[in-house]
This record gives sequence, C-alpha cells and structure tokens, in this order.
Amino acid sequence: LQNGFDEYFGIPYSNDMTPVGAKGKAARAYPPLPLLEGNEVIETEPDQSQLTRRYTEKAVQFIQKNQAQPFFLYFPHTFPHIPLYASEAFLGQSQRGLYGDVVEELDWSVGRILETVDSLGLGENTLIVFTSDNGPWLVMKEEGGSAGLLRQGKGCTWEGGMREPFLARWTGVIPAGTVNPAIATTMDLLPTFFSLAGAPLPDDRVLDGRDMMPVLQDQTEKHQETVYYYFKGELFAIRHGAWKMHYQTLTPYVGESPVAHDPPLLYHLGHDPGELYNQAEAHRQ
Amino acid sequence: LQNGFDEYFGIPYSNDMTPVGAKGKAARAYPPLPLLEGNEVIETEPDQSQLTRRYTEKAVQFIQKNQAQPFFLYFPHTFPHIPLYASEAFLGQSQRGLYGDVVEELDWSVGRILETVDSLGLGENTLIVFTSDNGPWLVMKEEGGSAGLLRQGKGCTWEGGMREPFLARWTGVIPAGTVNPAIATTMDLLPTFFSLAGAPLPDDRVLDGRDMMPVLQDQTEKHQETVYYYFKGELFAIRHGAWKMHYQTLTPYVGESPVAHDPPLLYHLGHDPGELYNQAEAHRQ
Repeated sequence: LQNGFDEYFGIPYSNDMTPVGAKGKAARAYPPLPLLEGNEVIETEPDQSQLTRRYTEKAVQFIQKNQAQPFFLYFPHTFPHIPLYASEAFLGQSQRGLYGDVVEELDWSVGRILETVDSLGLGENTLIVFTSDNGPWLVMKEEGGSAGLLRQGKGCTWEGGMREPFLARWTGVIPAGTVNPAIATTMDLLPTFFSLAGAPLPDDRVLDGRDMMPVLQDQTEKHQETVYYYFKGELFAIRHGAWKMHYQTLTPYVGESPVAHDPPLLYHLGHDPGELYNQAEAHRQ
Repeated sequence: LQNGFDEYFGIPYSNDMTPVGAKGKAARAYPPLPLLEGNEVIETEPDQSQLTRRYTEKAVQFIQKNQAQPFFLYFPHTFPHIPLYASEAFLGQSQRGLYGDVVEELDWSVGRILETVDSLGLGENTLIVFTSDNGPWLVMKEEGGSAGLLRQGKGCTWEGGMREPFLARWTGVIPAGTVNPAIATTMDLLPTFFSLAGAPLPDDRVLDGRDMMPVLQDQTEKHQETVYYYFKGELFAIRHGAWKMHYQTLTPYVGESPVAHDPPLLYHLGHDPGELYNQAEAHRQ
C-alpha cells in the first residue's frame, strides 16, 4: 500500500524466500513466508497450491467491486516461479508435467479475468495486458520453462532472457489478431497507462518508456528503435532495428563472470532470432 | 510415371543436384538440372525462382481438370531445400530473410490449393495433408530453418530431425482446431489413403503404418504407441508413449560417427520436449 495501491493481497516477494525452501532444496534464511491482505499478515507459510486460485478470486472480486469507476489491477502471479505448485484440479493434468500444470492454471486464471471483464460489459472500456518479467530459469531444468528458439534464459541479455510474450486486449480499440513487429519494453507501460488516464508524466526524472498505444493499435511499426540492455548497471548489448550488438555476455546461474567482446558480437534478430550466427566479421567497416 | 502417377511436373531430385551448385558453393558432378513434364525434359537449369509458382499453377490446373472424379495429388515442393529461391513478389518481403521469403511463398501456394478445392465445392470430399520429411538443415545456418525448442535437425534421430509439423483438413470430417497428441508417422499415410479409397493393402510385405483417420478425427489419443527410429539401417532410438530411449546419437553434417550409449539415454518428451535432461539414472532398475 505504501507504493500507492488501495488494496493488496499476496506474498510480498518470491515464493522461494521461505525457510521451507523449494521441494528437495535446502532451507533459506528467511522468516516464514507471509501472506498479506493490505498491510496485515493474515497467514504464514500459506498452502502455495491454493495461491493461483485465491489470487484469481480476489482479482475477480476487485473488478466486480470497482466496475462502476476507473480501476487499475496489477496482477503479478507467484507462479511459474519456483517452487511450483498447482491446485488439485490442475495437478497431473498436462503433458508437460508440473510446469505445464502450473501454466494451465495460470491460463485458467487469465480466462476468469477476461470472463469477468466481459460479463460486466467492461470489455470496450478496459485495456488488459499479459506479459512476463524475464525468460525461463533454465538451471531449474524441467521446472524452469523454455524460451523456444531464443538463446539462453533468465539472468542474461541474450534474447531468451529478455524477450517476452506480450499480449494486449481492448475490445473495439485494438484490432483483433494484430501482430506488430515494433520493439517495445515493459518500461512503455507506465507512460501508456498515464496517457490513457490523462495523467501528466512526472517531470523530475527521465523516462525511457513511451506511450505504446500506436503500436497496440497497429498504427506504426516503429516505436523504440534503439533499446539498451543493462545487467547489474552495466551496458551489455544494444538493439537497433533488427540488429543486436553484444559488448558483454554471460551464462546465467553457473557462477560465470561476464565475457567482454571486442569487436562486439553482432546478430540480425530477423534472420537469426536464435542469435547463433555472429555477423561481426561480415559487417566490419 | 513409372511409379504409377498419371502426370508429373517438376525436377526429379534435390535442387542442389546441379553443376551450377548452390549460391556461393562449389559445382557438383551432376548433369544440368532437368525440369520434367511426364517423362519429357522440357527445360534444363530452369529459373528456380519460378518453381514454386509454376508447380502451384500446375497443381491448381490438375485439381480443376480432375474435379469430377476422385484424384490424388502429391505436391512435394522443391523449397525450402537449398539453394533457396523465391519469386520477385516474395523476395525481400519477410523479416526472416530469404528463408522467410521462401516459406511465405510456400504459404501462398498452400492457400491457392485450399482456395481451389473450396471454390470447386470439393472441401467436404477432399483430405488435405501438409507435412515435411525432415527437420532443418542446421549447418546451412540462416538458410537452414529452425526446429524451435526441439534438439538438433535433419540427419539425426533427435526430435529436431524427426518430429515434423502435420496438419490435415477435411471439411466436415476432421473437427476444426483439433490437436491430438497421438504419435503418428508419415508411414501411416499409405494405409490411411488406401483405407479411404477402399483399396486392399498389399499382403506381400509388412507395413509399419496404420490407418490414422481415428487420430485425425480425434477419436483416440493412442495410435502408434511405440516408434522405432532407424538411421542408415541401424536402430538409434525407441519412443514408447512420452518416453524416448537413445541407443546411439550423432551430430549430423559434421563428419561425426554415431556415439553409442550404454546405458541408453532416456528422455520424457512431455516434460522435456527439448531432450535436455537425461532420466536414465533416475529410472534405472
């Protein structure tokens, strides 16, 4: 609530920050995992298999309660962060094992949100965004997810760590089925939401994000033409259009130090989305 | 025609079997690439950028000509075999470079076939299958395609070499949008087509394929429960349900000999479609 929200329901940090630890893993030096309602701890070490369902029910209630006025719901799920838990209805149901069960329950949850918005007649007045904060945690193996053809995962500046699914729905405003190749970042969300709400942007700092409604409405394929990839405060890579140049790279979660590249590595993400074929030699000047 | 077809239009083998060779590659010891109509060579070294369009036009004509009677059209495209060529209308149009241009022209071609079948009112009487014979030719780099999260590509028995897209359409017979997890192979096509045509299967040989209409109609998720992966006449791997066991593996097109595995490698293709996490130790008896 101290960040400006009116209500809060959930755990305050990652679900492995608990003395119980992940299944089969060592205990960690944290207090018992708190479940908060507002600023109040209502439970400790809650049954994590019920979190997705409980969060969803609270979110649906929040929408119902606020249907007559503008509202902002920020719904960051605990899962698929590790340790993974799915409720009984989803456990063992997917072909992809526990990770798949968890994803299928998240899919159910998203469905409940869309259904609630639609059933209240709010679809034409509500922007819904679905995205993620990082790629798969590959050292967790079968429990860590997959970045498909993208290279590497969470904890580095290869595309597998940085490029995320991003879906947006606003009935009647965003054309259905649009796929726009423009580059955008989650830093664009704040200016987008501010613009839609008619709120002035703060002028006491530089914002890297920009209102991305023209991209969502497929009115432009240009947006953030140049994107800078930082890791722990250092510039690792730059993307400009289809090209990406790596000054430093690292393999995450194996204790490896960053490797500097001089000349930098150069990839064409259109022709080579997997960052497999370094083009630096061919494009030397 | 000596294989039983009534008509033929196309080149008789891979499009790199030509003294011209692939772009930037050495010439090969082949006669000038012939383009055949029936048994007659009508051109040599045809302009390959026109092949997809010309094949498509011939296929459309074939369907139009035979619309009043049962017909079988086998339409194996030359591309995306290397060397890649796309016609002027598609060249430079995709974000994925020449490979993407080629795939977009193939997509156009498939659209023309579907459109022809539908416009003649044959959709409810025509089974259309789209599939491939092998995975990406990875040593060809940007021109070789991608198997996504599957391991390796053409020329080996990892899933990236063997697992292929397979789409089938038969309006009113195959439920739209069906995704069936059963295992099937292209060896199932012959018995499927024979069964649909009411033709008896030959009894002078053992056929590994089985009529797969129950899978296409989503009436069963079991079909070929066990599949044997052969490479140059030797057993390399066995898949049984979600499990795959590798007795031998190889990295294709780098001159590597097969590597024998004792105990065999064991992967769960449901939990680990990328064949990354060997489960042999955990499942030792």
